Amino acid sequence: MKIALAQLNLVVGDIQRNQNAILTHIKEAKSLSVDLLVFPELTVCGYLPEDLLYHQQFIDDCVTSAKYIAEQSEDICVVLGFPRNHPNEPEKLYNSAAFIQNGKVKMVYDKHRLPNYLVFDEHRYFTPGKHKGIVEVEIKDENYKFGVNICEDIWGDAAIVVKQAKQKVDWLINLSASPYEAEKIETRIKMLQRRCKNNNANLIYCNMIGGQDELVFEGTSVIIDATGKILAQCETFKSQMLIYDTDSSMRLISKRLDPLTELYQALLLSTKDYFEKNGFKKAVICLSGGIDSALTAVIAVDALGAENITGLLLPSKYSSQHSLDDATQLTKNLGITTHTIPIEPLHLQFENSLTSHFDNYKQNLTDENIQARIRGTLAMAFANNQNAILLSTGNKSEVAVGYSTLYGDMAGGFAIIKDLFKLQVYELCEYRNTLSQVIPQNTIDKPPSAELRPNQKDSDSLPDYEILDDILKAYIHDFKDADQIAAKGHEIALVKKILKMVDRNEYKRQQAAPGPRVTKMAFGKDRRMPITNGYPNNYG
Amino acid sequence: MKIALAQLNLVVGDIQRNQNAILTHIKEAKSLSVDLLVFPELTVCGYLPEDLLYHQQFIDDCVTSAKYIAEQSEDICVVLGFPRNHPNEPEKLYNSAAFIQNGKVKMVYDKHRLPNYLVFDEHRYFTPGKHKGIVEVEIKDENYKFGVNICEDIWGDAAIVVKQAKQKVDWLINLSASPYEAEKIETRIKMLQRRCKNNNANLIYCNMIGGQDELVFEGTSVIIDATGKILAQCETFKSQMLIYDTDSSMRLISKRLDPLTELYQALLLSTKDYFEKNGFKKAVICLSGGIDSALTAVIAVDALGAENITGLLLPSKYSSQHSLDDATQLTKNLGITTHTIPIEPLHLQFENSLTSHFDNYKQNLTDENIQARIRGTLAMAFANNQNAILLSTGNKSEVAVGYSTLYGDMAGGFAIIKDLFKLQVYELCEYRNTLSQVIPQNTIDKPPSAELRPNQKDSDSLPDYEILDDILKAYIHDFKDADQIAAKGHEIALVKKILKMVDRNEYKRQQAAPGPRVTKMAFGKDRRMPITNGYPNNYG
Repeated sequence: MKIALAQLNLVVGDIQRNQNAILTHIKEAKSLSVDLLVFPELTVCGYLPEDLLYHQQFIDDCVTSAKYIAEQSEDICVVLGFPRNHPNEPEKLYNSAAFIQNGKVKMVYDKHRLPNYLVFDEHRYFTPGKHKGIVEVEIKDENYKFGVNICEDIWGDAAIVVKQAKQKVDWLINLSASPYEAEKIETRIKMLQRRCKNNNANLIYCNMIGGQDELVFEGTSVIIDATGKILAQCETFKSQMLIYDTDSSMRLISKRLDPLTELYQALLLSTKDYFEKNGFKKAVICLSGGIDSALTAVIAVDALGAENITGLLLPSKYSSQHSLDDATQLTKNLGITTHTIPIEPLHLQFENSLTSHFDNYKQNLTDENIQARIRGTLAMAFANNQNAILLSTGNKSEVAVGYSTLYGDMAGGFAIIKDLFKLQVYELCEYRNTLSQVIPQNTIDKPPSAELRPNQKDSDSLPDYEILDDILKAYIHDFKDADQIAAKGHEIALVKKILKMVDRNEYKRQQAAPGPRVTKMAFGKDRRMPITNGYPNNYG
Repeated sequence: MKIALAQLNLVVGDIQRNQNAILTHIKEAKSLSVDLLVFPELTVCGYLPEDLLYHQQFIDDCVTSAKYIAEQSEDICVVLGFPRNHPNEPEKLYNSAAFIQNGKVKMVYDKHRLPNYLVFDEHRYFTPGKHKGIVEVEIKDENYKFGVNICEDIWGDAAIVVKQAKQKVDWLINLSASPYEAEKIETRIKMLQRRCKNNNANLIYCNMIGGQDELVFEGTSVIIDATGKILAQCETFKSQMLIYDTDSSMRLISKRLDPLTELYQALLLSTKDYFEKNGFKKAVICLSGGIDSALTAVIAVDALGAENITGLLLPSKYSSQHSLDDATQLTKNLGITTHTIPIEPLHLQFENSLTSHFDNYKQNLTDENIQARIRGTLAMAFANNQNAILLSTGNKSEVAVGYSTLYGDMAGGFAIIKDLFKLQVYELCEYRNTLSQVIPQNTIDKPPSAELRPNQKDSDSLPDYEILDDILKAYIHDFKDADQIAAKGHEIALVKKILKMVDRNEYKRQQAAPGPRVTKMAFGKDRRMPITNGYPNNYG
């Protein structure tokens, strides 16, 4: 039997485009004598469609598309994901998969386990299914028994998958939309291997790829036999149809990426897809000479092409010459169009407009924010004028402690490195420079500074990033509390100060631009903290 | 028996403050010979604590507080809400209620029905409970049987409540955190009356009050007898302990507010609490002379006091004299401090800084946004300098179609009228003027305009608000699609244009300030739409 894994890049809501892609792959698979073609979860509508699922017309359109695709599937078996209402209880919605053969739907399975944690809200939309998911068909004069299940069904206790395996199916088939996180691929594949071995079952596992707002899917679909051996494995972050012949003894295993390449590719694909799927080509970015804007610019160039990137140098009176030099060197290395606009005339004009109205002008904060917001306004003018998206450049460490200005450097439509801690920013810069030396070494070497007042350095108000990132990770990723974090070897007063900063800046994060999620707990859909929150008092 | 409903205003996460309020009420209830004192859902931590529930320390602190409160509850029965882990399966979390008598916990009930729609994500945190919730105690030498349940348990099929009623309990006790929506109170009370009548059960129903980020709770707690008759009803939007004596024939029923008063009070309480609970006293607001900023300012003054409000008049060359006059008149009527700063010098300076960099300056959009962002920057400077929150002034109709500038008029920490359609803004202005004539009549009468270019009017690019609001309501509140909306009597081309505007502006709303939710589908936690969304093509 010839099995094809179609790990496609789908577009949430664009049923017509997805249908075209699905039909193209069915046609191609048939031309290559594929017997069984498996697509990812919710193939026809993409993942996650969120509240589009509350629109009945949307569900009806998905079902119509799934039926149309089924009719077009002559002489092949196709397993396809789509949302559907219950035939007898039309108010209930299911996350379903159809097993199609020769233009007929042989079985529809509804997902049992609905994830409702991290970025997942499936209980919001779906009812858990009850069907067994077993289908028996004849392929090339042989009888086959399949157990179809969907994504989360194979995680946790995997009750339905275990039941299907007990039915002695020839193949388990899992349709997935399993979002990327650093270090997750290994965990996932090992879990799938254990599942096969422990239940003595063969598995066809198809995961999607592509960016959808914050989420990025990486594919790495696999076929695993009942001993846990990987027979076939798709590439990571690539749209691909991989065909595996069960009669062949040849394993087809794409090489896994090393960790930094993988992370870089995640950011690249997410950025590419956010622009392409939203109909944008161009990006604007403010270059400070610092490491965050440098990495953001390099990824943007790699994702969108140098011809589509405009770099802005917006120096103030506090900007150092090395910042300007470093930023200029970067734009030359990248070959991007650059505009330099000193903000001092605007800064002075704001001072003129405001000082007579203030009894007691808080020089530091108010004035620093004005500078950042002048830059935000200038950069947004470029974005508006070029039909471009402004990229904001904050990293996770900064965003966590609120070391950023709302409507200033936080302005922008996409924030490529918002889920990278500062130390990861350094790592990725060094990684990228091994491919070609684009980021000036001085940008990497010099001490970080926002340059919003004379001789300012990040280390004036923050601990070293080794310490800061460790505290933040323990708090945000692992839900540790002050005492537990201090027990890792940090000063308790510092820990409490940092946690308080994180909590007090929740209001900023709720107005931040989206950006690629590459950890298990990104700011955004993942971490849902109240702004009004009396608990920090307990850290005080 | 003397029953007390304690519909308190709690603070999410502030366990110490909530504990103090709870203990004060227990003490007061005891001094008034109350036998049974009922608090709202999740009393010790407030509702909704969101991802604070992922912190084990937070859960432990809640349980410690609940135990301490129990120990302090001598000579009285208290029913109290708190989150707890399962005694045998510590990884499972429940939304629970303790029935306490004489310092001892007699029973803990775990919520069965976990809402996971609209603003609710309870499956994210909690496991559904299994206990029956029945407790039998002796009060004043008489035996009583109670059935304790929590909020959603009494909605829908209310299976657990029906079971409890079948046990012939003397009283059902429901602890609630049921958020306010216009027209919901009536629905809720009628449902409760039906529940009592159909199940022949008496009910004590305690709902919380207060603002928590977007949510506002209005109280209106009730005691209803088995015939469906209301015996006692608390006030709406007031913190209150109401004591009802079952031996008395006297009903204690607070008057309900008329619909506009109710809506106004919702906005008032939400604003008051957002400021107070986040430690802010002062607000800054840009006054355009238009109706949206006028209503926002009036509510702010009513909520925070005129002495805490700074009004900014930031006229441009396109501002009309009547706008300035109307805004000035408003500030006089309200008695607030006002600053007038013409933005033209800044506008010119931005033009100077930018024009040489643009080949083809898109005068309209780019230039309009610059003006709005100059205002945003000036207003944020006041907010930063005064430790105040900038109030943004967009209404739901505007926010829906994206008729607003990110980082410009959308800048701000709280958006009081963001869930009011434009026609409701007019209604509330007229309502407020019946209390005292504060909003200049000309502000209400004149045609709305953003005044970002010469002679601009809202009606240049938008239909009349009667039509716009009707289309938006059908789309956003009722999930109707283009054809269905057109069938209500609207031009299909216009409907499609409006729906497309709504979808295309999702990215702006995801960076918008929070504001009071007063409908069943507010922008914010309620409506979770993808930004990257191919479905609008189907409206094209």
